Amino acid sequence: MRTQVAIVGAGPSGLLLGQLLFKAGIDNIIIERQSADYVLGRIRAGVLEQVTCDLLDECGVGARMHRQGLVHGGIELLFKGARHRIDMQQLTGGKTVTVYGQTEVTHDLMDARRAEGLETVYDAGDTVTLHGFDGAHPRVRYVKDGQPHEIECDFIAGCDGYHGVSRASVPQASLKTYEKVYPFGWLGILADVPPVSHELIYANTERGFALCSMRSPTRSRYYVQVPSDEKVENWSDDAFWAELRSRLDPEARDHLVTGPSLEKSIAPLRSFVAEPMRFGSLFLAGDAAHIVPPTGAKGLNLAASDVKYLSSAFIEFYRERSRAGVDHYSEKCLRRVWKAERFSWWFTSLMHRFPETGDFGQKLQEAELDYLVGSAAASTALAENYVGLPL
Amino acid sequence: MRTQVAIVGAGPSGLLLGQLLFKAGIDNIIIERQSADYVLGRIRAGVLEQVTCDLLDECGVGARMHRQGLVHGGIELLFKGARHRIDMQQLTGGKTVTVYGQTEVTHDLMDARRAEGLETVYDAGDTVTLHGFDGAHPRVRYVKDGQPHEIECDFIAGCDGYHGVSRASVPQASLKTYEKVYPFGWLGILADVPPVSHELIYANTERGFALCSMRSPTRSRYYVQVPSDEKVENWSDDAFWAELRSRLDPEARDHLVTGPSLEKSIAPLRSFVAEPMRFGSLFLAGDAAHIVPPTGAKGLNLAASDVKYLSSAFIEFYRERSRAGVDHYSEKCLRRVWKAERFSWWFTSLMHRFPETGDFGQKLQEAELDYLVGSAAASTALAENYVGLPL
Repeated sequence: MRTQVAIVGAGPSGLLLGQLLFKAGIDNIIIERQSADYVLGRIRAGVLEQVTCDLLDECGVGARMHRQGLVHGGIELLFKGARHRIDMQQLTGGKTVTVYGQTEVTHDLMDARRAEGLETVYDAGDTVTLHGFDGAHPRVRYVKDGQPHEIECDFIAGCDGYHGVSRASVPQASLKTYEKVYPFGWLGILADVPPVSHELIYANTERGFALCSMRSPTRSRYYVQVPSDEKVENWSDDAFWAELRSRLDPEARDHLVTGPSLEKSIAPLRSFVAEPMRFGSLFLAGDAAHIVPPTGAKGLNLAASDVKYLSSAFIEFYRERSRAGVDHYSEKCLRRVWKAERFSWWFTSLMHRFPETGDFGQKLQEAELDYLVGSAAASTALAENYVGLPL
Repeated sequence: MRTQVAIVGAGPSGLLLGQLLFKAGIDNIIIERQSADYVLGRIRAGVLEQVTCDLLDECGVGARMHRQGLVHGGIELLFKGARHRIDMQQLTGGKTVTVYGQTEVTHDLMDARRAEGLETVYDAGDTVTLHGFDGAHPRVRYVKDGQPHEIECDFIAGCDGYHGVSRASVPQASLKTYEKVYPFGWLGILADVPPVSHELIYANTERGFALCSMRSPTRSRYYVQVPSDEKVENWSDDAFWAELRSRLDPEARDHLVTGPSLEKSIAPLRSFVAEPMRFGSLFLAGDAAHIVPPTGAKGLNLAASDVKYLSSAFIEFYRERSRAGVDHYSEKCLRRVWKAERFSWWFTSLMHRFPETGDFGQKLQEAELDYLVGSAAASTALAENYVGLPL
């Protein structure tokens, strides 16, 4: 088999890249180790920046998002028992975010890909291997139904996440990695109950961080900070709701509607960056190259901006025979990635309890929150990062 | 002896308070453990916020500051080898800072106090003790020339710094303290050479932080970050200048004029806050209650705003027989103190090398600096804190 761009991974990054390339007339094949159902079953992010929404529109898959997505012009910060709204829309000259689950984005992109009859190889399992990306003949090999296959291509796009084969195929000596593990996780619950508030509430409380998020007007997503070694088995739904309730303000407590969990899990919080993001003909995008703690809702959005830069680079290459976009891909991405890493780290540091920073750290948090909600400049800095820095 | 307000400490806080009270017709005596020459010999801060300048004017001692002080509308941030100016004046709607040494401020206040014939007891040594501030009869006792003295008063103002007797006189159980010690110090030099640049340069470099400051057009004050256990004896003037030069950009390197040091010392960096700032009739102000690392130039300015709140409280008490100002003094101060602590900690964290945060921490610093100089909102947040938040 031969294609122009072999895409490893059929999550939102890979599917988005495939669709953008298809629209530009560039041939591509996606290889995914899991099944389509497995990919769709993963519960992930749910807050899209304008940049991400624009990309979905560019792919022609934005219709359902516009119909069902919830446009949010602000978020609320809860600390010392009171909520303070950050009017992002007003502070950024009209920018908003859209609440629309990553699962739905993946669904829409899968539907579009299927409708166009584009090739996606599912269930390739652990057989995927990358070859020759440091030379003139990059190839992706995999075994399907006992048969070995090889795809010859011009470029390989590694959109296969943190645990994927793409970054793992790069010689250790060529990679520099940066990492920070936070001393806590998020215990999250998904439930078909109406959200406690029409906007997201980020809570800094004595008992730890809490986040009231949502996926739709009838589906809520809630999180509470828990120690790193906490086990999800220790948390009944009732225990979760009681803990969440204890971290809310009285009004939110009154409005909280509880119900059985559709999903319940604990996610660790981590910051990770691998540099560079290109190795010859292999390009990493999204979680394959970097992880952010979820506090700033930047994970999916950062993947989307990587894909935007990467699709532009490939389009430039095929249309104009210019390698400029390809050559600058890593540098361009990383500048934005590090700013998002900085913001996600900062927002995480501001909102969680860190046992090791002690009373002084806690007082600094309170002082910063007090300053933040009282300063137009500081509120704007939060808002412009939350809605997404310009590409 | 009897006075209305006994002020412990004849540094800038105590002198400023004495002068403000005198102007309002409130009787006060200052008791200082050291000699006047010793107090004047201490080389300290040199950047005054507008709030501080206004207070000096209010005291009638601003003339020389206006004549000799240097008005600065911006600072420069040096990182990755290039300088970026933060135009504070433009970003804050016209606010500036004034470079004028703390020693000069002290001098002007001492002169004014002497001219008015107000009483200052110098050389009281370690004999000063505070009594009865939790009851109706506060008193300050001290021994001078072998004779015991007692001052009866309505209020005691503790303006005697971190190591002073005032905070030490408060029962441990009544105090809550917060502290952070940074893993480095500042090696500073004072020299009669023209400053390398007409504005301050804050440098984040691979070799550590450096600050190019000044006291006048012919007197420079320079600092380099050194490990906590560094000894000043290990640093010849030549070694200092070589180290400073290595942390500057090529243009600054060309303009650097070196010369013999007038003073050379290593100062540790620390954040410290004691809460509350009032105990009955005893009020703490300035370094007696809180210490900031010097990066944000907030130490003297924070002392000045404490003194402003305290003098207003006393004036309210004597003129209007209202205890409101007195009763809210601690809360009012601490709100501003913690914001300045937050800013000083943040600016220190942004500009220094922290061995323990590793490569990830360093990349975050670069990303934040990159974001900071590119974002009007983030630049404004820095500027509004640097020129001083409103009272």
